[in-house]
Amino acid sequence: MSAPSSTSRSSTFTISPADVGSALADLRERAPLVQCITNIVVAQWTANLLLAAGANPAMVDNAHEAGPFAAVADGLLVNLGTPYDDTATAMQRAVDSATGAGTPWVLDPVAVGPLEWRTRIALDLLTGSAPAIIRGNASEILALVGGSGGKGVESRHTPEAALSAARSLARTHSTVVAISGVVDHLTDGERVVRVHNGEVLLTKVTGVGCALGALMAGFCGVLDDPLLAAVAATGTLTVAAEAAAVVAHGPGSFAVALLDELAALTPEDLADRVRLS
Amino acid sequence: MSAPSSTSRSSTFTISPADVGSALADLRERAPLVQCITNIVVAQWTANLLLAAGANPAMVDNAHEAGPFAAVADGLLVNLGTPYDDTATAMQRAVDSATGAGTPWVLDPVAVGPLEWRTRIALDLLTGSAPAIIRGNASEILALVGGSGGKGVESRHTPEAALSAARSLARTHSTVVAISGVVDHLTDGERVVRVHNGEVLLTKVTGVGCALGALMAGFCGVLDDPLLAAVAATGTLTVAAEAAAVVAHGPGSFAVALLDELAALTPEDLADRVRLS
Amino acid sequence: MSAPSSTSRSSTFTISPADVGSALADLRERAPLVQCITNIVVAQWTANLLLAAGANPAMVDNAHEAGPFAAVADGLLVNLGTPYDDTATAMQRAVDSATGAGTPWVLDPVAVGPLEWRTRIALDLLTGSAPAIIRGNASEILALVGGSGGKGVESRHTPEAALSAARSLARTHSTVVAISGVVDHLTDGERVVRVHNGEVLLTKVTGVGCALGALMAGFCGVLDDPLLAAVAATGTLTVAAEAAAVVAHGPGSFAVALLDELAALTPEDLADRVRLS
Repeated sequence: MSAPSSTSRSSTFTISPADVGSALADLRERAPLVQCITNIVVAQWTANLLLAAGANPAMVDNAHEAGPFAAVADGLLVNLGTPYDDTATAMQRAVDSATGAGTPWVLDPVAVGPLEWRTRIALDLLTGSAPAIIRGNASEILALVGGSGGKGVESRHTPEAALSAARSLARTHSTVVAISGVVDHLTDGERVVRVHNGEVLLTKVTGVGCALGALMAGFCGVLDDPLLAAVAATGTLTVAAEAAAVVAHGPGSFAVALLDELAALTPEDLADRVRLS
Repeated sequence: MSAPSSTSRSSTFTISPADVGSALADLRERAPLVQCITNIVVAQWTANLLLAAGANPAMVDNAHEAGPFAAVADGLLVNLGTPYDDTATAMQRAVDSATGAGTPWVLDPVAVGPLEWRTRIALDLLTGSAPAIIRGNASEILALVGGSGGKGVESRHTPEAALSAARSLARTHSTVVAISGVVDHLTDGERVVRVHNGEVLLTKVTGVGCALGALMAGFCGVLDDPLLAAVAATGTLTVAAEAAAVVAHGPGSFAVALLDELAALTPEDLADRVRLS
Repeated sequence: MSAPSSTSRSSTFTISPADVGSALADLRERAPLVQCITNIVVAQWTANLLLAAGANPAMVDNAHEAGPFAAVADGLLVNLGTPYDDTATAMQRAVDSATGAGTPWVLDPVAVGPLEWRTRIALDLLTGSAPAIIRGNASEILALVGGSGGKGVESRHTPEAALSAARSLARTHSTVVAISGVVDHLTDGERVVRVHNGEVLLTKVTGVGCALGALMAGFCGVLDDPLLAAVAATGTLTVAAEAAAVVAHGPGSFAVALLDELAALTPEDLADRVRLS
């Protein structure tokens, strides 16, 4: 298990396509146990996507067990898609336990901003514990730094516009911030990495971003550098998506093919195809 | 956002295939935000089906946020598939808020009749607020007017047999009632529209009816006439299902193809293929 | 509806491939109503798999309705994948009601052992009521008899190693124990049946074991012998999986094809292909 790293080594380390390929090889070899406290919409999809990529999902999300389990998991995802009182308690206990045990955790602040209750949950989680990664769309990232968010779960801001907010958020919380979009922008407050892979059909399947957050938690379980973990997860998913789009006839067959292509993706192909800047 | 219309214009307006095609064009253009308080079985399927059709799903179903969100959503679905105390509270608050704000809402009274708790929830929701549409199978519609329902979620009554109950229910609550079956029957208490499209594989995939209710809420968000909204949703789903059945090898590939065909369906093709009487 | 049988007839009855084929014919003819109290990850998948196989799913899992419904269902599944306080109450009430009414029930003790709260739920359910079948992986079965379980939901023990524990558990609780693995091992404490069908892709799709438990509850609803019910469900799923693997390109298309092949599987083909010892 790896704690989020903020050493000077990682903060000056430039991430290359070869690093992303190696990261996938590590994920496959170690099959990290990823605890997901996520939502009723994407729980199955998230588990299947983690299995296809090579990680080991465990949806332990009740208030009784989430805390103890976070101490033994390799990574933890906290996703605010459909929180309830019970699972909100589970989230806080899991984050406390993960923090104590050094388990890296990822926050996916779905729809924060316009929805007040979950916004407070997110801010409470960030008080006293630094996630390895915060992953969201531009509106969600802006909302976490006090800007105006979107109306629903779909972003109305571009990743570029949110980048300075993301850098600020990353520095304040000693975390990595990953902004999804046509080009994904990821930063640890110092370094900025852009992932240029992707496919428009990704926006027509629910829960791709949510599953990406879970995959980031998986990569955090096998890597020291959370920015590399975030980039590797993003590259793995978006490169597989490009392959899936070739055989898909629409959003239904695209989602199916995405799982097939994730399972078939080799570290070498990933290193060849991922486009970073 | 459009409130349910009960003007004399709409109650004498005859619905044509061209109207259904235009409705789909409207849905695509405006991408209504559809709040779904639905069940754990079909949440992902519902979101993916809304995205494929052109709407914008938001599964906001907790008791803290469901009310405020219903005031800003374009349409609201309340589905009784797997209610819990928490989500039952969310349903009531969302309906109250929707009623105050003029947000049209759709009731899908899954398995009411034999299951007492949810039957009371449904009747409570109907007290003091008129949904734009009530969508169910024949047993569920009969149960809402005091008849005997089925043993489970599958209907043992024909839509034809439930039609007079549906007309009565529609008049009592100033709503539209949509009865699913081999032929779908839809009525606002005065007009009756039958949709003759469909495919037997639809009964072998869980949650098609549930997703249809969500799609009706989406169409309500862009149309003044809730009967047209119900007919347009039914036509869109069943015409896409006919196309999906051509390429499917069974219920698994049918569900995948249904999402593909929904995304590919043009308003022109819909107007050509939908069969109304 | 059939209660679990522990008569001398069934305990000396040798199960043949022809019996398994006949069992599927019975399932198709009677379409048993299967109540599933299961988890947020696999609810949709479970319902679709039951429909594809020929059973009739009903996900009634709230504390108000689970008890009364268990008295009228043909079979009941209790799956501990994502329990909450509300659904844990529903499980106990459903088991009490099923026991009183003679409804056979299946326990799937997902991840018991390392997770204390659900382990206590499982043991409480087994106090005062005998399930027709307990279905799990080797670690879960060992945990129920006091052995050490695995770290997560994936088993680290082989079915063979757990077989003596399974026989002991079966005798103590007058139940059938089914252990999933490369070769499935099933026992009522006296007889032992091994099912040699299967496919490695089954481990790359979440919830296959969970859905298998539901299918066992379905077969219990139409058969007197719960060991035959467990064997028939296992044979049906794994034979369909072998056919699905032929057309699959990875875990995504495999899951889709598994539903197609389940729906297409005839009792005759099943009897021909199932490999028992």
